[in-house]
Amino acid sequence: MKLRLDALIELGFYGLSWPRLKQEEEKISVFLERFHEKEQGFLQLPKVKSALLSSLKLAEKLRGRFEDIVVLGIGGSALGVTCLRDALKGPFWNFKKEGPRLFVLDNLDTVGEVEELLNLDKTLFVVITKSGTTPETMAQYHYFKEKVSKENFIFITDPKEGELRKIGASYDIPMLDIPQNVGGRFSVLTAVGLFPAALLGIDLESLMKGAEDMAHSFQAKDMELNLPFQFATVQYLLDWERGIPMTVMMPYSSRLHTLADWYRQLLAESIGKEGRGLTPITALGVTDQHSQLQLYNEGPTDKLFCFIEVLKQSSPMIPTIENPKLNYLSGHRFDELMATELKGTRQAISEYKKPNLTLEIPEVNAYELGQLFLFFECSIAFLGEYYRINAFDQPGVELSKKLTRQLLS
Amino acid sequence: MKLRLDALIELGFYGLSWPRLKQEEEKISVFLERFHEKEQGFLQLPKVKSALLSSLKLAEKLRGRFEDIVVLGIGGSALGVTCLRDALKGPFWNFKKEGPRLFVLDNLDTVGEVEELLNLDKTLFVVITKSGTTPETMAQYHYFKEKVSKENFIFITDPKEGELRKIGASYDIPMLDIPQNVGGRFSVLTAVGLFPAALLGIDLESLMKGAEDMAHSFQAKDMELNLPFQFATVQYLLDWERGIPMTVMMPYSSRLHTLADWYRQLLAESIGKEGRGLTPITALGVTDQHSQLQLYNEGPTDKLFCFIEVLKQSSPMIPTIENPKLNYLSGHRFDELMATELKGTRQAISEYKKPNLTLEIPEVNAYELGQLFLFFECSIAFLGEYYRINAFDQPGVELSKKLTRQLLS
Repeated sequence: MKLRLDALIELGFYGLSWPRLKQEEEKISVFLERFHEKEQGFLQLPKVKSALLSSLKLAEKLRGRFEDIVVLGIGGSALGVTCLRDALKGPFWNFKKEGPRLFVLDNLDTVGEVEELLNLDKTLFVVITKSGTTPETMAQYHYFKEKVSKENFIFITDPKEGELRKIGASYDIPMLDIPQNVGGRFSVLTAVGLFPAALLGIDLESLMKGAEDMAHSFQAKDMELNLPFQFATVQYLLDWERGIPMTVMMPYSSRLHTLADWYRQLLAESIGKEGRGLTPITALGVTDQHSQLQLYNEGPTDKLFCFIEVLKQSSPMIPTIENPKLNYLSGHRFDELMATELKGTRQAISEYKKPNLTLEIPEVNAYELGQLFLFFECSIAFLGEYYRINAFDQPGVELSKKLTRQLLS
Repeated sequence: MKLRLDALIELGFYGLSWPRLKQEEEKISVFLERFHEKEQGFLQLPKVKSALLSSLKLAEKLRGRFEDIVVLGIGGSALGVTCLRDALKGPFWNFKKEGPRLFVLDNLDTVGEVEELLNLDKTLFVVITKSGTTPETMAQYHYFKEKVSKENFIFITDPKEGELRKIGASYDIPMLDIPQNVGGRFSVLTAVGLFPAALLGIDLESLMKGAEDMAHSFQAKDMELNLPFQFATVQYLLDWERGIPMTVMMPYSSRLHTLADWYRQLLAESIGKEGRGLTPITALGVTDQHSQLQLYNEGPTDKLFCFIEVLKQSSPMIPTIENPKLNYLSGHRFDELMATELKGTRQAISEYKKPNLTLEIPEVNAYELGQLFLFFECSIAFLGEYYRINAFDQPGVELSKKLTRQLLS
């Protein structure tokens, strides 16, 4: 992948010349040092092969036994796997007959509806919660536990502790680990994402290779080579010096729509604390040109636009259209029209003087997705240092949980 | 529906006492007068029965002939019908065997994938574009035109003019009207929403009755009775006087997730102009508590939270859980847990001093959805007057279209 800052830098309206960005370069070493002191595990995941191997092995053992997979998980236990499915199998995968379908049950009011779609005996439930006390997931587990046998469950949880680990041990249910030093929103390259992806036959080796290459870039002291640092620096300077607090993540690919959702959690939960934070917004090209572009162009200058451009897509050809108002479309493929609309929209947004940058990938594949996951995770590590906050906790969600427990009791 | 401002007013941190709000009351008459001068048609739609009757009649004629419906439309031609399907048939409707399935093809890169799911001969394509020059929709139309016969098409377009009207007339394709004084994002209660909804057997009479009742409330000079004016006033004052420019629309109902998407277009395109505007953000309870709540609670005070609370939902029971850390869940229904999480989260957000209000509806049904559509549309009419901008145009999207045409030619 490439990070293209050209539109942003050429605009010149935000003081964001390359020399200005380079002034920050010396922070890379300091930030990396502070980051390593926090002993977070996500950076090592691409190198540690144990999760990959155990996921593949268990998936191999189960192959062909189930028609449907249902992930019981929420937040970080749901978003990564949804993204893997949509990006690499397509957003319409569950309508295809190739199977297995993969449903992610990440809300409370859809349990009954999803249950009706399933042949329960032929459904594998993958229960994902690190603590084993996530109320939504554990309520769902206990609900389905009464309906199917223990052979229909796999648990993904803390390697040693927690309520789900205990249940798994007492019922002899196969379990995979979430390393203790990897938080939920950074867990997509643990068994949380890898095991369901293995069941779908996704190319995990390439995924991990892409991630490993980006983990390498994260350690580069040279700013030109450190893409995550470039991204974090742009976000931080625009917010801190220019009061631009929103990041719009806008892939021009339906397959990457849920990648934007995954990033939305990563940015919000990591950086939104102590009265500060960037607000993530997801948008989808070309669709949201017909919904949000008016605001983006003519509204306040309070958003950084982050396009994701896919160079190679495939799609059918638009036939010849005789109508003079429409014949400019004739003979182009649908994806060409999409790519051209991105160019037109990016140029328009630039002419409206709105800051924007582009993540460019050659195509949507496992390698590039692995790069993107680590690119975003590493940029968050730098952002945490810029804002001098701990990017790896989430103290602000406890009060709501406590009040819910009190109200239910 | 009810609009509950109690949490907001009791907070008292934003100067938003009821007496402060009441100071704005005298603007209602002025704003209504200015609105009526703009001669917008959406307010009359619930009373005009012609779109309802023609949609029902055509749907009745076609009943049973098609397995699938594919809407070719984007923006305002896609979001309303998606919302109607999800809210009243459920977000998993297309997986059920009751049929017909309803796909909304509102992007360019999914044409081939969706095509593979269809038995084309048994598919009805509903082509929706007012001008007949929307490139995405017209490209799709010309693509499928080569694959199926003209009996597989219905057009919904301008009653007199435009490219699609011409094609329909020359091929004798059944057509339904989008009134000329109704813009795309306000068109859900024209044939644009009503005809596909009629094919799904949705109760259109109740939908229109709900809308009509809210259109009545919009004209009330008494602020207590005018819910759209209350909502617009809160949004405007928080933005204008306190610098809170984002509106987070957060239904606690999976069925209403795409209602938030529909509102997202309505607010963004209507008010985002002349350097001003509110940024809409969609979130889903309880799911996004595990993704966004950290930012919402502990991040900057720059968002108005608008919860949608559904009093009556139905769902299965959570069985008895022996574990002492989880037995507070035992014997509650899933929807009770959801409702309680809303209460806990709302209380937490209030304790973090973040402005919030609640739209309360007794249940998700056609009547309440009709109320919600008009409530939001009417609030936009008032917001346009507060900001002194024309809420009914979208000049800021033209440049991108022009550049795209140039680049393709």
